Amino acid sequence: MPEVSNRGKIMPASPIRKLVPLANKAKAKGVKVYHLNIGQPDLPTPPEALEAIRNIDRKILEYSPSEGLLSYRQKLVQYYAKFNIDVTADDIIITTGGSEAVTFTFLSCLDPGDEIIVPEPSYANYTAFAIVSGAIIKTVPSHIEDGFALPPIEKFEALITPRTKGIMICNPNNPTGYLYTREELNSIRDLVKKYDLFLFSDEVYREFCYTGAPYISAFHLEGIQDNVVLFDSVSKRYSECGTRTGMLVTKNATVKQNVMKFCQARLSPPLIGQIAGEASLNASDDYVLSCYNQYVERRKFLVDGLNRIAGVYCPIPMGAFYCVAKLPVDDADKFCAWMLDEFEFEGKTVFMAPMSGFYTTPGIGVNEVRIAYVLNKEDLGVALKVLQEGLKAYPGRVLE
Amino acid sequence: MPEVSNRGKIMPASPIRKLVPLANKAKAKGVKVYHLNIGQPDLPTPPEALEAIRNIDRKILEYSPSEGLLSYRQKLVQYYAKFNIDVTADDIIITTGGSEAVTFTFLSCLDPGDEIIVPEPSYANYTAFAIVSGAIIKTVPSHIEDGFALPPIEKFEALITPRTKGIMICNPNNPTGYLYTREELNSIRDLVKKYDLFLFSDEVYREFCYTGAPYISAFHLEGIQDNVVLFDSVSKRYSECGTRTGMLVTKNATVKQNVMKFCQARLSPPLIGQIAGEASLNASDDYVLSCYNQYVERRKFLVDGLNRIAGVYCPIPMGAFYCVAKLPVDDADKFCAWMLDEFEFEGKTVFMAPMSGFYTTPGIGVNEVRIAYVLNKEDLGVALKVLQEGLKAYPGRVLE
Repeated sequence: MPEVSNRGKIMPASPIRKLVPLANKAKAKGVKVYHLNIGQPDLPTPPEALEAIRNIDRKILEYSPSEGLLSYRQKLVQYYAKFNIDVTADDIIITTGGSEAVTFTFLSCLDPGDEIIVPEPSYANYTAFAIVSGAIIKTVPSHIEDGFALPPIEKFEALITPRTKGIMICNPNNPTGYLYTREELNSIRDLVKKYDLFLFSDEVYREFCYTGAPYISAFHLEGIQDNVVLFDSVSKRYSECGTRTGMLVTKNATVKQNVMKFCQARLSPPLIGQIAGEASLNASDDYVLSCYNQYVERRKFLVDGLNRIAGVYCPIPMGAFYCVAKLPVDDADKFCAWMLDEFEFEGKTVFMAPMSGFYTTPGIGVNEVRIAYVLNKEDLGVALKVLQEGLKAYPGRVLE
Repeated sequence: MPEVSNRGKIMPASPIRKLVPLANKAKAKGVKVYHLNIGQPDLPTPPEALEAIRNIDRKILEYSPSEGLLSYRQKLVQYYAKFNIDVTADDIIITTGGSEAVTFTFLSCLDPGDEIIVPEPSYANYTAFAIVSGAIIKTVPSHIEDGFALPPIEKFEALITPRTKGIMICNPNNPTGYLYTREELNSIRDLVKKYDLFLFSDEVYREFCYTGAPYISAFHLEGIQDNVVLFDSVSKRYSECGTRTGMLVTKNATVKQNVMKFCQARLSPPLIGQIAGEASLNASDDYVLSCYNQYVERRKFLVDGLNRIAGVYCPIPMGAFYCVAKLPVDDADKFCAWMLDEFEFEGKTVFMAPMSGFYTTPGIGVNEVRIAYVLNKEDLGVALKVLQEGLKAYPGRVLE
């Protein structure tokens, strides 16, 4: 048999994915598994999106333009304007999910051996997309004790080499729920300016900021407009992950031109997803507010509940719908596997994401898990109880 | 401004894409443009697919599994069985269009500097997907005078180096419409076996074979089952290009495992496209036959018409819905641009694809165009007349 690629071999298998067979095994035994491991919201897709799909009156489901439907991009201009992000339809390229937006941007901006700096913990698949482009991710650790605030900018600067091409952030952050302050973002801006770097900014959770602190987009930072590539997606905002509708926004003409070559090679983003995405922009204020309110309530309920469990510490997240909790266990990978494989409480167990997949620095976050609050309060209550009982029974429990 | 990637710079912009602004300019002047340049069929999507979309009764458009919906993959097993392709649901991975199937396979099998051999002319975007993986495409020219038959296998063997990892074919062929014979495919099989190469086989046009000669899949070749990766797509078969539903089929466990890592990183293929694709498998025999019959009729009408124009030569294609024609012109790129930019006949012109984008060997096919017969006979008749008049008027006409 011919040898497969080295690139394929080094692609990390996600620690979450490794646990899926155990979750399936638990389900096969009749155990109810509470999924707190993935960012698949349980909230409904806007009825406007579903109606638009049901009312499609086309006879042919044809290619859309490679850059996406013009009508959709025009409507997105107004959407962004509501957040004081001043862009034109030409600055927006529709992609197959946010994943493709990141992949095509990395392919367009980064050559093999080029480096980008990312505060960790960070979204695990950035690493995968970097591997596709051959680029190297260098990480600056943030810490649960600081609520995952941006590490001092000097730590970023210390990693800069002649191969450094950019900084990547996710704001509000997946997995930490942290929302970067103006001061933190200004320090990033200064570094971006000083070394003429790209600023790749994943802002898919902008609707979900809970503390009254402002959401600050990379496009709100002065003097670096041509350095910014913003990544976006309708998946979380409208609970329509399966439509695979993402986008990138940039004013950098050369980046746009390069990205368009990759877009043209794959011909078209999904047509129906764009129709759903465009219709979702008509979602009522009630829909948006109702989603927001549910996350606010769940967040408080979950984080309070976690911090009430002996030995658990969870900083309150300011945005997104994840929190990272430190557990009194030897190893969160082992604990999460054990919860699925060996534990049940009244026929129930909990699937959480070990944080090992979100860090690259060895030894950090070994006792941390990410919990997505994508279940209703009642289910979260049960999950908290199951977690509490699991921690009591776990043989690898660490007493502080 | 930071520098973009070299990879982005070397990505070729398709010669077809370069003509799009000229086509738009012609339309703005009120000229009717007949699009023979792209493989976007004008035939209707099966009503079963449209109905399935209209009847979606989900409240949440959630992620599908990264490998695609199990029910769809199971039904595809029966579909392939009809073509004597004996695979299981585990051998099938659903992708975002055929494009993603090729990209993920190249990423999984090929490292930067690895080589694959492709008979040319070939689908232009293979080059783009190879650039994504860093692999190098080496081409063996086939010729219009031979009806684009497979070049002698010795020419392939002469290109083999220690970096050669595979051979890629498209059968029935885009752009030539050629259908490879058992003898030709056996010669490829022997080479694949001798050097233990991958055989990447794009077979999206299998329904469209017109001469009674058998369609032979790469999976029909004996002794190389673990070397084969088959690419497929619903786009052309069911006229639903916009759903972005493709797939790859392989029995090679290591390739599957690698491809799945890339699939998991991008989370999910489009959900609604899969629902449409699955429903399309229920399309009636009448639908399938009607599409087939229309292509048969158009093909004869178009190719007869082309060969009746003075100086034009077009071998009759055996499959797919393209033909390649040699025109009495100095340069097909210039001629196609001129047709859009400067010519019109009774307010009409024709958009064809210059073949330069399908060849990499310099100097071959400079007077060839690809014509997709994706319009009805009446429109094809008008397009033929316009082409005939255009050739008469073109200043770069070459008299033989």
